[in-house]
Amino acid sequence: MSKQKPSIPKGTRDFGPEEVSKRNYIINTIKSVYQLYGYQPLETPVMENLSTLLGKYGEEGDKLLFKVLNSGDFLKDTDDTLLQEKNSNKLLSSISEKGLRYDLTVPFARYVVMNQNELSFPFKRYQIQPVWRADKPQKGRYREFYQCDADVIGSNSLLLDAEMVMMIAEVFDKLQLNVTIRLNNRKILDGLNEYIGETEKNVALITAIDKLDKIGLSGVEAELVAREFDAAQIEKIKSILIFEGDVFEKINFLETIFTGEKGIKGISEIKGLFEKIKQVNNKNITINFDLTLARGLSYYTGTIYEVVANEVKIGSILGGGRYDDLTGIFGLPNMSGVGISFGLDRIYDVITELNRFPSSALINTQLLFIPFDADAEQFALKVAKQLRAVNICCEVYPDLNAKMGKKFKYADDKKIPYTAVIGSNELTEDKVSLKNMASGEQRLVDIQELITELTGEGGIGFLDVSE
Amino acid sequence: MSKQKPSIPKGTRDFGPEEVSKRNYIINTIKSVYQLYGYQPLETPVMENLSTLLGKYGEEGDKLLFKVLNSGDFLKDTDDTLLQEKNSNKLLSSISEKGLRYDLTVPFARYVVMNQNELSFPFKRYQIQPVWRADKPQKGRYREFYQCDADVIGSNSLLLDAEMVMMIAEVFDKLQLNVTIRLNNRKILDGLNEYIGETEKNVALITAIDKLDKIGLSGVEAELVAREFDAAQIEKIKSILIFEGDVFEKINFLETIFTGEKGIKGISEIKGLFEKIKQVNNKNITINFDLTLARGLSYYTGTIYEVVANEVKIGSILGGGRYDDLTGIFGLPNMSGVGISFGLDRIYDVITELNRFPSSALINTQLLFIPFDADAEQFALKVAKQLRAVNICCEVYPDLNAKMGKKFKYADDKKIPYTAVIGSNELTEDKVSLKNMASGEQRLVDIQELITELTGEGGIGFLDVSE
Repeated sequence: MSKQKPSIPKGTRDFGPEEVSKRNYIINTIKSVYQLYGYQPLETPVMENLSTLLGKYGEEGDKLLFKVLNSGDFLKDTDDTLLQEKNSNKLLSSISEKGLRYDLTVPFARYVVMNQNELSFPFKRYQIQPVWRADKPQKGRYREFYQCDADVIGSNSLLLDAEMVMMIAEVFDKLQLNVTIRLNNRKILDGLNEYIGETEKNVALITAIDKLDKIGLSGVEAELVAREFDAAQIEKIKSILIFEGDVFEKINFLETIFTGEKGIKGISEIKGLFEKIKQVNNKNITINFDLTLARGLSYYTGTIYEVVANEVKIGSILGGGRYDDLTGIFGLPNMSGVGISFGLDRIYDVITELNRFPSSALINTQLLFIPFDADAEQFALKVAKQLRAVNICCEVYPDLNAKMGKKFKYADDKKIPYTAVIGSNELTEDKVSLKNMASGEQRLVDIQELITELTGEGGIGFLDVSE
Repeated sequence: MSKQKPSIPKGTRDFGPEEVSKRNYIINTIKSVYQLYGYQPLETPVMENLSTLLGKYGEEGDKLLFKVLNSGDFLKDTDDTLLQEKNSNKLLSSISEKGLRYDLTVPFARYVVMNQNELSFPFKRYQIQPVWRADKPQKGRYREFYQCDADVIGSNSLLLDAEMVMMIAEVFDKLQLNVTIRLNNRKILDGLNEYIGETEKNVALITAIDKLDKIGLSGVEAELVAREFDAAQIEKIKSILIFEGDVFEKINFLETIFTGEKGIKGISEIKGLFEKIKQVNNKNITINFDLTLARGLSYYTGTIYEVVANEVKIGSILGGGRYDDLTGIFGLPNMSGVGISFGLDRIYDVITELNRFPSSALINTQLLFIPFDADAEQFALKVAKQLRAVNICCEVYPDLNAKMGKKFKYADDKKIPYTAVIGSNELTEDKVSLKNMASGEQRLVDIQELITELTGEGGIGFLDVSE
């Protein structure tokens, strides 16, 4: 066992005390809102069988899965020719059966299918756990990161789509963030194709209009020309993109031009959605009907969700949508579901940049006892016990013989706001010398005064024991 | 993508809503106590470099590590001969660089060494995360399980050893469990060897007396004979094992017979420890000085801890101890630390068997709105918003057209205690028909009465938002 300079794998992170506290503040906010809407927690194993994971995220996704080597003599029963050829691809299935979770949606679908007879539908679950992707690490992209998902499965009611918007608004309201919720419906995008009489170039159309924000109307036009849409089609698309009006004006406009089956269905769904969320009126939350929103080319089939921060440029901080057949792949067809996923890391960055973590987000020691001798230490332990009984976090400095400077430095370094020195005088009087580390103010107090100072008006509060 | 019957890897588990809530009740209890003593949270990545993990858990441990296959063409640069020989052991290092966390102590040591210049010592951290071992799964033993650790490093003060006992007592007191905390010191075991004039058979001695509970004094005696301890040695050992008395009588007895350096140090440490924990007086917690406690043959060098439940036979539910050199392996020598680890799964089983999960441990929807039409649904959404604003978890049944029986069954299945039916009568009066699902009692109430019923005396409480 040689001594070594330790490190952690590329794209992974340690989270120290302050980061954990701040991350938990965000996670607990999301969790509490999910719970208020009747979503219940689910936790699945970090490892899933590769048979569960492979083929669910496209070819690229398969490559980005972290695979776990079979235990023991993993080469024993492998094929000689494949070994000789160094055929990593084909050898894989004989040396690895498990992989790390890539997202929370596939494990959710797997869980629902495995437990379909015990669950009551619509089944509402939330899941806040890390996932892994062997992506190239870069700023803001990690190989291990948390997803914070809520999904409901087993009903196609628009009320559930609407509930997602309500939860999103409530979470960002509680986090004191000014955001825009962008909503669209995949069937509206289908309707757009119906409207221009084009069925083959769905992807090309979505890709082009998805860039409107970045390249402007003329840019999109150039893109459409390049992708061989004809002049009449481009005119039709432009007429929709330039339309100005509020949500219901937009919907009315589409109603006058869409005649295809999917488009009409899409309009009816988006209209139903906006009618159900009329009561959402959090003052920092803007809700838009955004015809250009596509959310990639994934499995969504109905409502799609995206959230952007209005005060910080960072990309989307939430995504989600409705999918008509989530569990079919595992043998349970026709289960419609809708879900959202908060981007914890980006939300963390936004709150950091805006300096909006509340001080209560930081759980910290509030008082450091500094006893001078063994008797004082016993007294400190007794008082500490009383403080902890009323949920005040406190510590007793453990080394009697350390220098005073070192003891106060410990309090400083750990940002402990109060110290309580106990020498023989204090001991005689059953009191402590309480020092406010910020103001430097110091006074002799008894235990009751100490508790009042720490918990009362102007005090620094106490630990919420339920966290 | 063929349809498949999904499953999860052997030895892993899904945790549904009720299990997550109950597990979190235990975890939050442990966490809150750790925080009250100034321990701060740390989270490390699930994957560690194999260079960090290998060689830290013995040869057997190395085998039990889950290894992660390198991404991409992992066979590309492997040695042809090793491949041909199917030499799994030697090939490993060229196809796998990462493994899954095996415990929380090694990642903690790695973190301390990597961040030694930023941390203030003594550094107190707690860490509650899953770990993985490729063990043979069996009842109560899983391949993925949580550890709930607290460690402090950078001081050899006995106060920190004592604090561990205080935290243990407080956690089990809060969990309403009747337990025995068994304490010993590795140096006492060394002293025993000094006392019988034996330096080679330390392990044999520990192994033999460790079985006292199971095989009795005569069994231990037979074992010692088999291990070739001589008659005089066995008499000396027996005199200690049969000694009856309270903690300080035991200590006094050892003081009269131990003369070796380690033994004397051990006595002084255990005496200091028991003096510092005199104030621990939780009524369901028994604290013993147990000379036969050895805690395996791991790295401990001072105090050792073990907890057993007094009401359920299940083995130890906590273990821990002091180690003199935790970070030496990573190049930071002479850092003494002490730590404990709660066994979440076994504690869960004990509480389940004793039926002592408090009802508040279960977070659940408290009210299901059942609207009859779109207008009633809008009204339900409005009322739901008001309830959620005062932290009452509630849901609106999403499918207007479902049969009434199905709607009430949803409430039953999900154990929702109240339903609120809203038809045209209720709508006219701005009220809901509130039904207590347990008693069947039903009455027309306005929103204020509804909130009072749900949160007031005899009500079912509300969500603690901080969780």
